[in-house]
Formats: sequence, structure tokens, C-alpha cells
Amino acid sequence: MNKLKCTVSYDGTNFSGYQIQPKSRTVQAEIEAALKRMHKGNDIRIQSSGRTDKGVHAKRQVFHFNTELTIPSHRWKKALNTLLPSDIRIVAVEEVSENFHARFDAIEKEYRYFILNTNEPDVFKRNYTHFDPDVINIEKFQAACKKFEGTHDFTSFCSAKTTIKGSRVRTLYKVSCHKQEDIIMVILRGDGFLYHMARIIVSVLLDVAKGKMSMSEIDTLFSVKNREYAGMTIPPEGLYLWDVIYEKDN
Amino acid sequence: MNKLKCTVSYDGTNFSGYQIQPKSRTVQAEIEAALKRMHKGNDIRIQSSGRTDKGVHAKRQVFHFNTELTIPSHRWKKALNTLLPSDIRIVAVEEVSENFHARFDAIEKEYRYFILNTNEPDVFKRNYTHFDPDVINIEKFQAACKKFEGTHDFTSFCSAKTTIKGSRVRTLYKVSCHKQEDIIMVILRGDGFLYHMARIIVSVLLDVAKGKMSMSEIDTLFSVKNREYAGMTIPPEGLYLWDVIYEKDN
Repeated sequence: MNKLKCTVSYDGTNFSGYQIQPKSRTVQAEIEAALKRMHKGNDIRIQSSGRTDKGVHAKRQVFHFNTELTIPSHRWKKALNTLLPSDIRIVAVEEVSENFHARFDAIEKEYRYFILNTNEPDVFKRNYTHFDPDVINIEKFQAACKKFEGTHDFTSFCSAKTTIKGSRVRTLYKVSCHKQEDIIMVILRGDGFLYHMARIIVSVLLDVAKGKMSMSEIDTLFSVKNREYAGMTIPPEGLYLWDVIYEKDN
Repeated sequence: MNKLKCTVSYDGTNFSGYQIQPKSRTVQAEIEAALKRMHKGNDIRIQSSGRTDKGVHAKRQVFHFNTELTIPSHRWKKALNTLLPSDIRIVAVEEVSENFHARFDAIEKEYRYFILNTNEPDVFKRNYTHFDPDVINIEKFQAACKKFEGTHDFTSFCSAKTTIKGSRVRTLYKVSCHKQEDIIMVILRGDGFLYHMARIIVSVLLDVAKGKMSMSEIDTLFSVKNREYAGMTIPPEGLYLWDVIYEKDN
């Protein structure tokens, strides 16, 4: 039995999300269907670093699975890509030890969010950036980013539907924003992200950058520990799971 | 009766082309459906500068139509965009004189073709660039471009299915290529383009840039006046109708 770690890129536009669900096109279902074909009709269950929502993209998502096939790992990539639809591409496959786990061994995740800040929308970017024509103050945006770095209880910044029973304390190692031409890119890097956390944080950052919220209100949001105060969840099309980092990558 | 000139941008990915045809999703059909709703169920026929094929995009396509509605021209854009799907965006609307014609008055067209020249395909660019991992010599590419500038009979460089009975002589004012990071952009600007002409020319340019064809073979292709010699038609996803130019624009 071999355990393989796969890194995969997908365009979330035409998926109902990452996780398998009945009667919906999902990334996991497409990958498992390709693996089933390679395993002569036997079901292969994959374990990913985590799910992504409908419309959210992945530059580098990671999953693992066990196989009895003896294909050398460098051939797996081509074999899988031949069977996968064009909006999913395997970018790397490597053999790992039997105790590797894509979810439990991930020590860091990076998300990026892209905002198209122009007067008019662009048909070619509509599924890959969030369009916002408002005046956005980048200095305020950057200052607000710093408020989120460090260890905090993120209860106010995760969906009220979050089902986890444990701690909502997470550490963000880096939160920053960069403007290049008409695109504002937000980088969020941390030890873990709660449900909708990246998208709620970006919404709050934008509110501050537009002058709709003051910097001190961010402190208040942290202290109230209640999702109802932090405003909207920004749409998914601008969000990318950018990377998943494991111990030995460092 | 008012005549309006509209400039429209569309993502060709999910269309069976520009021109209306039964049981297919086309750009023209979507625009005419939106106009029909604005005109209380009356059919409005639009006239464009020309058609584009399945999968081909438009940064700026132009069409005109007649209307009895008395909406000021600056309100038309928003009204139409509200009714159009998100892969079609009207970028400008202006009133024109009654003898304006989007096709017959166009004096120049510009097409651009984008090639992604990397080792691996990119899921986010698959519908917007043509992926080619081969070694491409940009100096040869540029030299080959020059061969196409000027006035030529383009019979060898248009689809054998071309139905036009008239002259196949066209003038290309500019043919050039530019590499920026991993993207090669080809610009083709001329007084008119035959069916598949832009895509066949780019195929030939690539053959030369890869050393599969010599520079002098381009001369031969011009002189044989036979489509069978010029190789493949490059796929549509890298092609954009970039602009249509009218007399008074200059």
C-alpha cells in the first residue's frame, strides 16, 4: 500500500464547492471519479487539507490517498490529468509515509483575495476577482491588515453556522495588501482558518479602507465575539486557497 | 427612429459563437433577447462589424440597431447591462447618423492572440490563452510577422470553407509579437480579415518560431493560393477581437 500526497489547482467557477455532495459537481467528486477509473472501479476516498466553498479557487490545495497501484509517483500526475476535467489540474504528486495526513499535518495555510478596483467590470475577470468600483484607501487598508496579525479569538469573524465546538483562537502570521494597477491583492497566512473567516476579514478590511468603519471598531469586534457585528461575507470569486504548508516544506 | 452604435465586450467561452443560430447560446441571440425585453416583445435585429467563432472573445466588438425608444444614449448602457448575462458587457453606446453601418463603415480591425508559453498549463488561463509548452524563438516570430504586413492575397490563409466570391486581397497594417513573462501576444491589425485568417496566420508564425517552417516558405504559401499548405488553424481560446475602427475615431 502506498500513500500519495497530491497538490491540485482548480478553477472554482463551475463547482458547487470542494466537498462531495449528492447531485452536485464538486472537486472531490471529480478527483475520486478519476481515481476510481484508475483503480478498476474500486472506490478511493481522498482526504484534503480542508474544503473550499462554491466559487472559491485553489492555486495549491493538498490531498492524500492510499493506493495498491504500483505506478511510479512521477507518472501519477500525467495519468490523473488525462482523466480529470480541464478546470482541475494536478500540479505535483509525491509518495509520503503512511502516517502523513493532508489535514492534520498542515501547519500553515495561505489564502489570497483579489479585488478589481475599476469603474467598470471586466468580463474576463468576473469569475477571478471581486469587482468593487468604490474609492479604496490603500494606506488605511494596510493599517487595518496589521490589526489582524497575531493570535486572536476569531469568533466575530467566522460564520454563525460554524459547527466546531473547540477553540476559535487562531494565529495569523501575515495579513497584508498590495495594489498593482487596478488589482488589490490581500494575503492572509495563518495556522488555520474558520468557516468564512478569510472572506469576513476581507469585508471588514474593505469597510475600513472605504471609511465605513474605524480602526478601533476592529478591536471592538474582536472583544464582542459575535458574528453579527462584522458585516457582510465578501463573495467567493476573488478568493484563492493559495498554499498549504507542511513541516518538511520549511 | 434613432440609430445606436454599441461597443460590447464578451467572454466567448460559453458561447457557440457570435452569430445567432437555432438552439445554441450565441452573443447575438443574448443581445437581441435583451433588446426585445426593452421593446415590449418586439424583435430588434442588430448588425455587427462581423461574427466571431465559438470560443473567440471580444474586447471591443461593435454593432448597431434602430429603435423607437427615446431613452437618452447614456442610459442605454446601464439598461442593457442589467438585462444581459454577466459574460456580455456593453462598454459604450452612442447615437449615430441614420446611414452608419457597423460592418460597412469599419475601416480597420484589430485582433490579438495570446499564447501561454510555460511547461505546465494554468487552470485559470485555460479559456483565455492558448497553452503551448514548446520552445518558441521570439526573434524568428517577430521576423515572420513582418512577412505578413502589407497588401497580399490571403487565399492560403483563410478557411477552405470561406464562401466569399470576391477578392481575397487584404492589407495588414501591423503584425507584431511581444513576450511579457510567460505570455506571447500577437497583434494583427488590418482592413479586413477572412474566415479563420487570424488563427491560420498565428499557426504559421508559430511554426516558423519553432523552426518547423522556414521564412521563405511563407513566400511560397502566399504564391500557391491554396489553403491546404498552411497547416493547422490554431484553437480559438487565445483569440480576441480587440477593436473595430471607424472613420471618425481617427
